[in-house]
Amino acid sequence: MVKTIEWKDGKVVMLDQSRLPLEVTYVECSDYLMVAEGIRKLRIRGAPAIGIAAAMGVALGAQDIRASGADEFIGKLGPVMDTLLATRPTAVNIRWAVERIRRLLEDHRDASVDALKQLLIEEGKRVLEEDIEINKAIGRWGAQFIKDGDTILTHCNAGSLATGGYGTATAPMLIAKEQGKRIQVISDETRPVLQGARLTSWELMQAGIPVTLITDNTAGALMKKGLIDLAIVGTDRTTRNGDVANKIGTYTVAVLCREHGIPFYVAAPLSSIDFTMESGDLIPIEERHAEEVTTVWGHRVAPEGVNVINLAFDVTPARYVTAFFTEKGAFRPQDIGKLPQEGVDLESLRCRQP
Amino acid sequence: MVKTIEWKDGKVVMLDQSRLPLEVTYVECSDYLMVAEGIRKLRIRGAPAIGIAAAMGVALGAQDIRASGADEFIGKLGPVMDTLLATRPTAVNIRWAVERIRRLLEDHRDASVDALKQLLIEEGKRVLEEDIEINKAIGRWGAQFIKDGDTILTHCNAGSLATGGYGTATAPMLIAKEQGKRIQVISDETRPVLQGARLTSWELMQAGIPVTLITDNTAGALMKKGLIDLAIVGTDRTTRNGDVANKIGTYTVAVLCREHGIPFYVAAPLSSIDFTMESGDLIPIEERHAEEVTTVWGHRVAPEGVNVINLAFDVTPARYVTAFFTEKGAFRPQDIGKLPQEGVDLESLRCRQP
Repeated sequence: MVKTIEWKDGKVVMLDQSRLPLEVTYVECSDYLMVAEGIRKLRIRGAPAIGIAAAMGVALGAQDIRASGADEFIGKLGPVMDTLLATRPTAVNIRWAVERIRRLLEDHRDASVDALKQLLIEEGKRVLEEDIEINKAIGRWGAQFIKDGDTILTHCNAGSLATGGYGTATAPMLIAKEQGKRIQVISDETRPVLQGARLTSWELMQAGIPVTLITDNTAGALMKKGLIDLAIVGTDRTTRNGDVANKIGTYTVAVLCREHGIPFYVAAPLSSIDFTMESGDLIPIEERHAEEVTTVWGHRVAPEGVNVINLAFDVTPARYVTAFFTEKGAFRPQDIGKLPQEGVDLESLRCRQP
Repeated sequence: MVKTIEWKDGKVVMLDQSRLPLEVTYVECSDYLMVAEGIRKLRIRGAPAIGIAAAMGVALGAQDIRASGADEFIGKLGPVMDTLLATRPTAVNIRWAVERIRRLLEDHRDASVDALKQLLIEEGKRVLEEDIEINKAIGRWGAQFIKDGDTILTHCNAGSLATGGYGTATAPMLIAKEQGKRIQVISDETRPVLQGARLTSWELMQAGIPVTLITDNTAGALMKKGLIDLAIVGTDRTTRNGDVANKIGTYTVAVLCREHGIPFYVAAPLSSIDFTMESGDLIPIEERHAEEVTTVWGHRVAPEGVNVINLAFDVTPARYVTAFFTEKGAFRPQDIGKLPQEGVDLESLRCRQP
C-alpha cells in the first residue's frame, strides 16, 4: 500500500498528491511550517490525512521549542497549533487532532519538556495507526451494504490517499473485494482539483478494482440508465443532525441519488463528526482561488478577468443520506446525534438495510 | 458582434472556437472536407451553427462538381451530404439543413448546373440570415420570463457562437438587457470541453452582461442558497414529446432545478425539434474520445489506461422542462408535438407564466 504520510527520522514525510498520478514524489518536512504549507497547497488532503498531518506537525513544531518547563512549553506550542488550525477552515479533523493533543498535554503538565516532546511524537504515530484501524472497521460495516455485482459511484477522493490507509469511502469497496464480491466503481473526476481523476481512479487501479472515470456531468445520465447501484462519499465535517459537508458537487450527487432511488452513503469516522455543531448551516465553507477554475495545469481555460465562485465544499442535508458508515457501525442520519450520549446502546441504533 | 461563420469570396470562413478565449482565429475552408473537419473537431459547434456550416459546406462541395445536368449534379452531391451528415450523429440541425437543400434541389430539377451551384450559395447565406432572425424571436419570447434582477444559470454554450448570431439560450438574456432589465448569468464551465468557461463567459463579457463562472459541481450549492432564479439551456435535439438532448450535464441541471423549484427553460429553434421522433429514448448519443476527459490541453490528468465513459449528451425528460422558447412562442413540453399540426392555433398554446 502506498504510504500517504509517516514519521521518519525526525521528519514528517508526505506523498505529494498534487503531482499524482504522473509522479510519485515524497516531501520531507523538517519543520511544522512545511507541514502547514503541504496541507494548504493540497500536497496532503482528505479529512483524516490532514488530521494526521496536523498531529505530526505539532510534534514536529514541538521539537524546536526551548522551554524551562511544561507551562512555558505548552504556551510556546500555541502558535504552532494556531498555524495548523488556520490552514483549512472547513475540516474538523485538524481541530480534532489539536484538541486531542491539548488534552494529552493537560494530562502531563508535570512531565519534563523532553518527555513531552517524545510524547507528541508517539501521539502523532498513534493517530496514524488508529486511523487505519478505524478505516478497516468502517469498511467492514459498509461492505454489508454492497452486493456482488454492484456498481458504486464515488466523488472526490476519500480513499487511502485521504487517510493513513484504506480510505473511508473506499474501505467498504476494498473489504467487499476481499469478501469476493465483484464490484466496480465509477469515479467522478471532481472539478476543479480533479481528485477523482488524479487520485481515486489511480488508487483503485492499484488495488485491482475496476474503475471508470467520468466527468461530474455524467453521473446523472448513468443513473438514469440504471448503471449505478449505490453511492459512497466521504465527509470533511458532519454535524450532529447528520448534515454533511464534503467536496463541492457531493450535494448534487445526493440529489441525483434521491431522484433515482439510489442509496447515498457517507463514510464518516467519528473524528469527522462535529457533535458540538447543531447543523450544516453553521459550517464555514472555504472559498478557494479563482485560478483553480480558470486555469488547468497552467493553461488558461477562461477569459481574463472573468468573475468566479469557487466553493471548496457544499453541505448535503441529512435527509438525503441513507446511512453513515462509521467505525462503530452504520447509522441513520437521525441517530448520529445520539452516538456520544452516555449509556447509548449502539447495537439498537445500527442499521443493516439500505 | 463576433461572426461565427460566413460565406466570403467563395470560401466558408469560421471562427475557430477550439482556440477561444485565448486566440481569435478564423479558418478559411476552401473545400467541404475542411468544413466537415471543422464540425468534427469542434472548431464550429452548437446545433444551429453546425446546421449553417452544413448548408454552406454543401454549397462549397457543389462548386467543385462537374456534371452535364441536374440529375448527375444532384447524384454527385450525395457523398458531400453524407460526409457532413456523419460528422455529429446526435445533432438534428445538420440533417435539417441537408433535407432543406434536398427539397430545394428537387424543386429546381430543370435548372442548369451553374444555376444550381449559385442557388446553393444563396441558400447557405439564407440559412445564416434566417438563423439570426429566429434567435431574436426566441429572445423576445424568452425575455418575458426574465425579471429585473434575475440571476440565470446556463450550461455549455448556446450563445452567439453556437449560432449565426444572438444565440438561442443567450438571446433572452440579450433581449432582457436591451429591455433595461438588470440581470446576471452563472455559467457552468461544462466539462469536458469547457464551452462554458471558454465560450459562454467570453461572449457574455463581450456583450456587457455580468457573468460568473463556476464548476459544474457548484450549481447545486448556489441553488440551495437561493442564488439562482431560473435556468436557460439550448438543445441539440428535442423530440416530439418534449424530451431534450443537450450537452452532458444538462439533465443534472434540470434535476437540480426541479429539486429547488427553479424554472428550467430550453431555448429551441424549431429546426432543433425532431417532430419525426417519438421520444428522447430513441436519440443516438454520441460517445466521444476518452482523451477529452483524461487530458486537458495536452496535460494528462488521469492515470494511463484508466477506463472512461465520455457521453457527449444526455436526455432530459420533458417533465423537467418548464417551457420551451421557440421563434413562434414559449410552449409547454406537452404542446411541442402539436406545433406542426395543420391549422394549429399557436396563440392558444403559448405560455406566459413560469
